Amino acid sequence: MTASTEVPPTAAGERFEAVLRETVGPLADEVDRTGRFPRDGVRALAGAGVLGLLGAPEHGGPGGSLRQAAGVVERLAGVCGSTAMVVLMHYAATTVIDRHGPGEVRRAIAEGRHLSTLAFSERGSRSHFWAPAGTAVREQDGTVRLDAEKSWITSAGEADSYVWSSRPVAEDGVMTLWLVPADSAGLHVRGDYDGFGLRGNASSPVTGKAVSVPATAMLGADGEGLDTALGLVLPCFLVLSAAFSLGVTEALLDLTASHLRGSRLEHLDRTLAQQPLPRQEFARLRLRADAVRSFLDDTLTALEASRPEARLRVLQVKALAAETAAEVADGAMRLCGGSAFRRDLGVERRFRDALAARVMAPTTEALHDFCGRAALGLPLFEEA
Amino acid sequence: MTASTEVPPTAAGERFEAVLRETVGPLADEVDRTGRFPRDGVRALAGAGVLGLLGAPEHGGPGGSLRQAAGVVERLAGVCGSTAMVVLMHYAATTVIDRHGPGEVRRAIAEGRHLSTLAFSERGSRSHFWAPAGTAVREQDGTVRLDAEKSWITSAGEADSYVWSSRPVAEDGVMTLWLVPADSAGLHVRGDYDGFGLRGNASSPVTGKAVSVPATAMLGADGEGLDTALGLVLPCFLVLSAAFSLGVTEALLDLTASHLRGSRLEHLDRTLAQQPLPRQEFARLRLRADAVRSFLDDTLTALEASRPEARLRVLQVKALAAETAAEVADGAMRLCGGSAFRRDLGVERRFRDALAARVMAPTTEALHDFCGRAALGLPLFEEA
Amino acid sequence: MTASTEVPPTAAGERFEAVLRETVGPLADEVDRTGRFPRDGVRALAGAGVLGLLGAPEHGGPGGSLRQAAGVVERLAGVCGSTAMVVLMHYAATTVIDRHGPGEVRRAIAEGRHLSTLAFSERGSRSHFWAPAGTAVREQDGTVRLDAEKSWITSAGEADSYVWSSRPVAEDGVMTLWLVPADSAGLHVRGDYDGFGLRGNASSPVTGKAVSVPATAMLGADGEGLDTALGLVLPCFLVLSAAFSLGVTEALLDLTASHLRGSRLEHLDRTLAQQPLPRQEFARLRLRADAVRSFLDDTLTALEASRPEARLRVLQVKALAAETAAEVADGAMRLCGGSAFRRDLGVERRFRDALAARVMAPTTEALHDFCGRAALGLPLFEEA
Amino acid sequence: MTASTEVPPTAAGERFEAVLRETVGPLADEVDRTGRFPRDGVRALAGAGVLGLLGAPEHGGPGGSLRQAAGVVERLAGVCGSTAMVVLMHYAATTVIDRHGPGEVRRAIAEGRHLSTLAFSERGSRSHFWAPAGTAVREQDGTVRLDAEKSWITSAGEADSYVWSSRPVAEDGVMTLWLVPADSAGLHVRGDYDGFGLRGNASSPVTGKAVSVPATAMLGADGEGLDTALGLVLPCFLVLSAAFSLGVTEALLDLTASHLRGSRLEHLDRTLAQQPLPRQEFARLRLRADAVRSFLDDTLTALEASRPEARLRVLQVKALAAETAAEVADGAMRLCGGSAFRRDLGVERRFRDALAARVMAPTTEALHDFCGRAALGLPLFEEA
Repeated sequence: MTASTEVPPTAAGERFEAVLRETVGPLADEVDRTGRFPRDGVRALAGAGVLGLLGAPEHGGPGGSLRQAAGVVERLAGVCGSTAMVVLMHYAATTVIDRHGPGEVRRAIAEGRHLSTLAFSERGSRSHFWAPAGTAVREQDGTVRLDAEKSWITSAGEADSYVWSSRPVAEDGVMTLWLVPADSAGLHVRGDYDGFGLRGNASSPVTGKAVSVPATAMLGADGEGLDTALGLVLPCFLVLSAAFSLGVTEALLDLTASHLRGSRLEHLDRTLAQQPLPRQEFARLRLRADAVRSFLDDTLTALEASRPEARLRVLQVKALAAETAAEVADGAMRLCGGSAFRRDLGVERRFRDALAARVMAPTTEALHDFCGRAALGLPLFEEA
Repeated sequence: MTASTEVPPTAAGERFEAVLRETVGPLADEVDRTGRFPRDGVRALAGAGVLGLLGAPEHGGPGGSLRQAAGVVERLAGVCGSTAMVVLMHYAATTVIDRHGPGEVRRAIAEGRHLSTLAFSERGSRSHFWAPAGTAVREQDGTVRLDAEKSWITSAGEADSYVWSSRPVAEDGVMTLWLVPADSAGLHVRGDYDGFGLRGNASSPVTGKAVSVPATAMLGADGEGLDTALGLVLPCFLVLSAAFSLGVTEALLDLTASHLRGSRLEHLDRTLAQQPLPRQEFARLRLRADAVRSFLDDTLTALEASRPEARLRVLQVKALAAETAAEVADGAMRLCGGSAFRRDLGVERRFRDALAARVMAPTTEALHDFCGRAALGLPLFEEA
Repeated sequence: MTASTEVPPTAAGERFEAVLRETVGPLADEVDRTGRFPRDGVRALAGAGVLGLLGAPEHGGPGGSLRQAAGVVERLAGVCGSTAMVVLMHYAATTVIDRHGPGEVRRAIAEGRHLSTLAFSERGSRSHFWAPAGTAVREQDGTVRLDAEKSWITSAGEADSYVWSSRPVAEDGVMTLWLVPADSAGLHVRGDYDGFGLRGNASSPVTGKAVSVPATAMLGADGEGLDTALGLVLPCFLVLSAAFSLGVTEALLDLTASHLRGSRLEHLDRTLAQQPLPRQEFARLRLRADAVRSFLDDTLTALEASRPEARLRVLQVKALAAETAAEVADGAMRLCGGSAFRRDLGVERRFRDALAARVMAPTTEALHDFCGRAALGLPLFEEA
Repeated sequence: MTASTEVPPTAAGERFEAVLRETVGPLADEVDRTGRFPRDGVRALAGAGVLGLLGAPEHGGPGGSLRQAAGVVERLAGVCGSTAMVVLMHYAATTVIDRHGPGEVRRAIAEGRHLSTLAFSERGSRSHFWAPAGTAVREQDGTVRLDAEKSWITSAGEADSYVWSSRPVAEDGVMTLWLVPADSAGLHVRGDYDGFGLRGNASSPVTGKAVSVPATAMLGADGEGLDTALGLVLPCFLVLSAAFSLGVTEALLDLTASHLRGSRLEHLDRTLAQQPLPRQEFARLRLRADAVRSFLDDTLTALEASRPEARLRVLQVKALAAETAAEVADGAMRLCGGSAFRRDLGVERRFRDALAARVMAPTTEALHDFCGRAALGLPLFEEA
């Protein structure tokens, strides 16, 4: 980890590193093989204060920065992608809860007793999270009934709550957000996730059928969910997603460098690193990764300084980092050759994890469309 | 399957299709999940005459053509990559046996009673199969002692014989070939293959320690193994490898087309196929695949007509097909988005299989080096 | 030139080669420098029977094939891109005239006394040639009045006639075609072309204001122009455009090979060809070009045999060849390094010519859209 | 210009902008067309203090920073690439003169009365500037005789002096540097540069035959020229080269954005910017450029703070910026379609300029080799 991201300092940082070394790391391969949710790792991270990192001081949290959260996610992603994604989604969800949620949940989060996640994507609108089809209806008793077919909810069935999007109850606008307890009646996690990468992140569809929540479960005002999502959740999610991709990228480059330095062509008496072609390709990939780090650093600085281009930078940084991760991962698979096909090298696991980010909403294509619209003076949302 | 490759005609073709439909296809997912060698599929293919396809009529074979073998491998690869690779390696090995091997083995092959494979790559020289470090020593009793650390032998522990490379016994030259029975004392398959793709092809390291074979096990003359490998094995292997890549590519495009046509963005009331971007990218990939098919067809025609550029074409065709498979596979993963991360769509299995060809010896880089040397008037072998 | 295209045989072929050697070649640099139309070259080609190649025997033509025309264009393109493009557009225009035009013009074409060209693209619809805005109005005297702002007409002010598209006079449909004599009143060539590549092809905007033509100038039926364009002009244009790109590509590879073989790093005592990196890259580009040749050959064969996929192949072949030309050209510029920046090497002229094809209508993007629609079961024309 | 680079402040900055607006800009097209050296522009820049920017205060200079020089070069490059390259090479040369040169030349430079340039590359070692073949021989009268065939000297015949590399006179090592007055007897500029891009930068071969310089012309110690080149010249050259590429890139993106926003498809009643495909591609290119800016900014900061990775960053930044410029330029040519082929749009001039940086020594491939060696623990110089 260098300039662009940072882990929490001193004591907290040491505890974090210990959890990585003693729990998350040793379990990573098994999590990947079995596809089991990394409960032990998440619990240990909670115990080390990692889940509460962003919690505000007034609720007992350390008031950690987004830069620190990025440091945590980057570091985790190189060790266990599934665990990193669980923490990432938790951080993204807590941005809303910390602004609009009830005090006791905020306190529980700050103290590491509550794991949350986002429930945005839906079966019908796929990765277009800005167009929920799920509904919220005010019942006669004052409660609200939620119905939706959510897809791809990280930590499905594992988190304590979902930050849930629906159409507005009564107001104009396209979205309203809710804090839905995971044990609400009517919530059904549909099937285990058996996937290509991030195999332990419990990313499953969740159906909500007549889920009843109190009116106070609303996060922010009715109909203003998209503003909250774009202004609060998205910057956090996008920056952390970039940090995730960077972490996987760095892990891949480390493994590749070791392979190139350690593998010999005995009949030529040289290592692979001493061959001009792999060296050239490695440097090209190394440069790609370094460019992502600079860009992520610049994005964080822009956010911290409220620079006007910050809004564009967060959209760009996820696209750049995700595409770079995919490119570096593909290059690492090629450079490590047949060896990368063996699981024990660790390259193929990171390769599989690396491909997730570009297709997670907002996808690279969606981000480019937003950025292209911004750069060319067009409205941000409008289908063509 | 279109112009470029063809399956054996009529009766044989129908039996082949039946085996695909009834045995190979239904077992493919399990083979991939468990990493188990597809014994039932290989046995059924043997029974349908597929293993004996290239067998010469004088030994009871149908005298099938390389074009037909390519058709078989292409078809298989789209259904079960592991089975396809086993058959491919068998065909490549039998080219040598059919020219230089003993009559009874040739008969057994023609009759589908013998599965063979190549044992070329070694730990020390890695993918540079043209530089074996393994030795062959003539013993006082006239037998020959073979020692080597072979790596990445397909069907290791499953085949009946290995076509084995070593340094020459006594003559100049860089290689001598041997037919080594799989039950020879001193052969050890080292560990199960637990890999990224082609998980059922039993591709494991094989150590030969003081393996004793009769002098008659030599395939061709002492020291002339490289000529045999380049003139006989390589064209067959390269063409079939291209057919393999093309088969996986076509399967990926079929799955992707289905996904694009069948997935709707309900809030926009259109399928993904109706979105300009995915359509554009699909067409680009479709064109890549069609270009491989034309090139493979042209390569086969060049071989059949003994056109002078045939030698260059076989080197090129594997590189083109393997790189295209990797590119199409990556594009399919992207186009199918999150859905491709679910195993049941079948995309991720083909994606993993698709990445194998480019790193199998001779790798794309090695092939480009050969072709570059040929095109620029340099000697073919010479390290730089 | 190899299998995929062919020049007219024996006597005709020899005359063609002589014109290339004695006229077109020696003038190519000057044509490029000055941007002057290659009148001497076109006249010499006419004299050698090249302009009349496709002329039907009943009008005194040799009845040459599209494959021969492709051979001519490929060969020309490597020597002088501007001349090649002029001939290409002439061939494309004559496909319509030969089917629907008046006998005397057909005879003049067959005898090399008439140069024609296409006038399809318009200022308003840009490269979407299938959507002309220009009008055709029947006057009281039975003549027809044409108005349009044509853009990018090759041989503007140099050809003897234009094959001109407009909206239909009276019928439904989107297009009607006309044979417009170049000396018609109301035609104005607007300004000299001073461009990046193909600098001598006189590609200028042409305004038609109240151009009067007889009703018999209509080529085919009113409103059926798009069918004619798609069925007759387009296959010819697309195939020849591919041949054009291939010709430029081959010229670039020849120049690059010479550079790599002839340039020495004296302090290392080796040529650039002896460096692994440039050799690798050269082979990659060489393979790209060879894949285009196979594909073009396959496309021509598909057309000759009326294979069902022929329609798709012609759309694909221009895209593949144009993109390959651009890629090879860029690679050649890189491989030839600083030397390519000097005009006398000839690389930069071909590089500039090579980039034209991909943006000529139908552009690569348009072709991919058509092919994607065909492959995904959507209607061919429909804007999104 | 944003965060990463900056122009000299207030008065100086305003004068600079005025020169750009009134002299450099209006002459740019003519410089490109005629290939004439931009004497008026250089003179005006000198007058505005731009040539003396890096001059130390003790010699009357403003002691400008590398970041300011980068700002100047970036700004110039978007307006007139040739002028920018002349200034870039002058700055790179003055780094050595300012450290090791005579006071009066340093004063002349600070006062804008002296234009210098680098004379490193040679015919024999091509872009491998670290391996000069040219010689330096001490004569009996104490003077030194220089002989070399220099290639590609920017401002050849226009500059007042050359910073000249040769083999050492007597010491070990590979290089010694000299300050050679441009009017020295024995210097011959060989031919005018008539090139693809940067057409006005007077980049010609220069032969030195028995050029006599005083022993005091030596810049630094005998045999230590490579250290000086790597430690002093290279960081400046590489950073400014990146700024050059970025300036051209930004100009191309500006022109492309204008084209997309201003061009209408009238039959669809929308601009090109409203088409999903061009918008997507534009955003992708825009992101590439922004990543370069962040990386350049980070590189400058690393240099300013003497961060340990600064040495690697300067090698990387030129590679990243040059490759990005080439990629963006190619994309701009495609996005602007046929229009980009017309000179008056200004795209094709920047496109031609943009391709220069990647092949200027050290080329992208050389930089990747250095970076790969550094990252993989190998010695920096060693040929393979």
